[in-house]
Amino acid sequence: MHRDQWHLAWDNSIEPIGRIQSGEIVEFDLLDSAGGQIGPASTVEAIKTLDFSRVDQVNGPIYVEGAEPGDTLEVEIVDLQPANWGWTAIIPGFGLLADEFSEPALKIWKIEGGADGWAEFLPGIRIPMAPFCGEIGLAPGAPGALSTIPPYRHGGNMDTKHLTKGARLYLPIETSGALYSMGDGHAAQGDGEVCGTAIEAPMHATVRLTVRKDLQVPQPQFLTAGPLATRTNTAPYYATDGIGPDLVEATRSAVRHMIEHLQRTYHLSREDAYMLCSVAVDLKLCEVVDMPNWLVGAFLPLSIFSKNS
Amino acid sequence: MHRDQWHLAWDNSIEPIGRIQSGEIVEFDLLDSAGGQIGPASTVEAIKTLDFSRVDQVNGPIYVEGAEPGDTLEVEIVDLQPANWGWTAIIPGFGLLADEFSEPALKIWKIEGGADGWAEFLPGIRIPMAPFCGEIGLAPGAPGALSTIPPYRHGGNMDTKHLTKGARLYLPIETSGALYSMGDGHAAQGDGEVCGTAIEAPMHATVRLTVRKDLQVPQPQFLTAGPLATRTNTAPYYATDGIGPDLVEATRSAVRHMIEHLQRTYHLSREDAYMLCSVAVDLKLCEVVDMPNWLVGAFLPLSIFSKNS
Repeated sequence: MHRDQWHLAWDNSIEPIGRIQSGEIVEFDLLDSAGGQIGPASTVEAIKTLDFSRVDQVNGPIYVEGAEPGDTLEVEIVDLQPANWGWTAIIPGFGLLADEFSEPALKIWKIEGGADGWAEFLPGIRIPMAPFCGEIGLAPGAPGALSTIPPYRHGGNMDTKHLTKGARLYLPIETSGALYSMGDGHAAQGDGEVCGTAIEAPMHATVRLTVRKDLQVPQPQFLTAGPLATRTNTAPYYATDGIGPDLVEATRSAVRHMIEHLQRTYHLSREDAYMLCSVAVDLKLCEVVDMPNWLVGAFLPLSIFSKNS
Repeated sequence: MHRDQWHLAWDNSIEPIGRIQSGEIVEFDLLDSAGGQIGPASTVEAIKTLDFSRVDQVNGPIYVEGAEPGDTLEVEIVDLQPANWGWTAIIPGFGLLADEFSEPALKIWKIEGGADGWAEFLPGIRIPMAPFCGEIGLAPGAPGALSTIPPYRHGGNMDTKHLTKGARLYLPIETSGALYSMGDGHAAQGDGEVCGTAIEAPMHATVRLTVRKDLQVPQPQFLTAGPLATRTNTAPYYATDGIGPDLVEATRSAVRHMIEHLQRTYHLSREDAYMLCSVAVDLKLCEVVDMPNWLVGAFLPLSIFSKNS
């Protein structure tokens, strides 16, 4: 499927760009999440002039023969190949700490070695690639157009880093033909994607789409390809806690504490620290029962630092 | 420190049971979190008659010479040895889905092979041990007694599964002497501890307490002993998503979907499924930026099932 066959809404009235049989493989040539507004030579000016209404386009939809409401679409991630560059940005008004980061920032990455390679953040800090697509979804059953920014019951912008090559994702089908689309290539990301962007990259994606009439799921579910985070979970982690009676504030607090840790320990700028959290730091709900206080941990893999690897 | 030297509040007026120099090692012989109200022969009757006011006692406090407010206490987890049995319970009124699980339940575990061993949940389902202490904390600076149920800025019931042998925990000191206590041995737990109990077990804990005047932390932070979850992260995971505009509800939804998955796929009772989530399933904040919808994933390690290992 070509990179210009995209749309900007989850809407069952959008005409399919192709029809396949259940079990067939489809290849997608995906632009980055900015729809080509950012390139390897871009500067922060590109963020200042970014047309947000063109962000998170998805390619498709594909009509899968035999798919009916109530069935499940199994999406096997057959292959993912990122371009040789990517970007991460702080976009004003977007992200977990949007109220604390009002200035735009842009980092352009050079991706070395493709899907199994790495990208250097700063000298001594290398992020291993673990590509996936942030957007994978189906058209909703109800009429009308839904933004591609949030995730929904039927998928969409799930931004789930564990959907790497070999994973199998199960999505509830709400319309005849399922109407599958995908986009938003990410070369690497932490659980949370806290600044709002990952290592955003054009992606060549290959998936197998199979209608499962034997399975019902209430929201997306998936089987990972193997153990989790195998490229970063190779050394100790440093974790900062966020503790408090509001779960959103506890999450924000854990990230804020990690930003402070990165500034103090690795002498990063505040903006670089926030972006590094987004592409490499994993958010975990360590406890959700000891009321009134929740505990969220932000986990930094020390394997990304050359002096610790 | 003996198992009867416990207290039930974080309170800087509690008299220390011992004084040590910074850098010294302390050993704790800890009762389980029910303070001895549950034993290997207990039945669900023990939950019905449980005195909740005696739950989550901690042993201590230890006065560390030289510790002053504004310093940091480094807690090195030197060793953790669980008893040869443990328990997991659904306690009415407690837990993430308390409103949906009103009946008490109790599971008694036999722990085989100690800290490096495992415990069988049901035939074909084995949980590898990865012991830690749920409660690790210091007395608060402000006068008065705080419940030991929630975690605080100065630690407490953090229920953080990554604080295993070899980890180093950093706690902000608020009082002279730091006044360190610990308890609540857990032989294994998932991120979240969703039903409110882990594999609760009497624990022999050895820690080294060091005053760090060169370090300040705003809330607890820690360095793990190595890669995360090495005993369960050895095979694929099955994950269920919770997606929605309220983060607490998204978390509850992810757990509810995993309970349904465990019931359908492994024919577990609803109560067994909830307890299995608490001891083995990890909650991750997959994305926290694609508003208005959060996405929480509940991750089941398939390595615990003999047919998948």
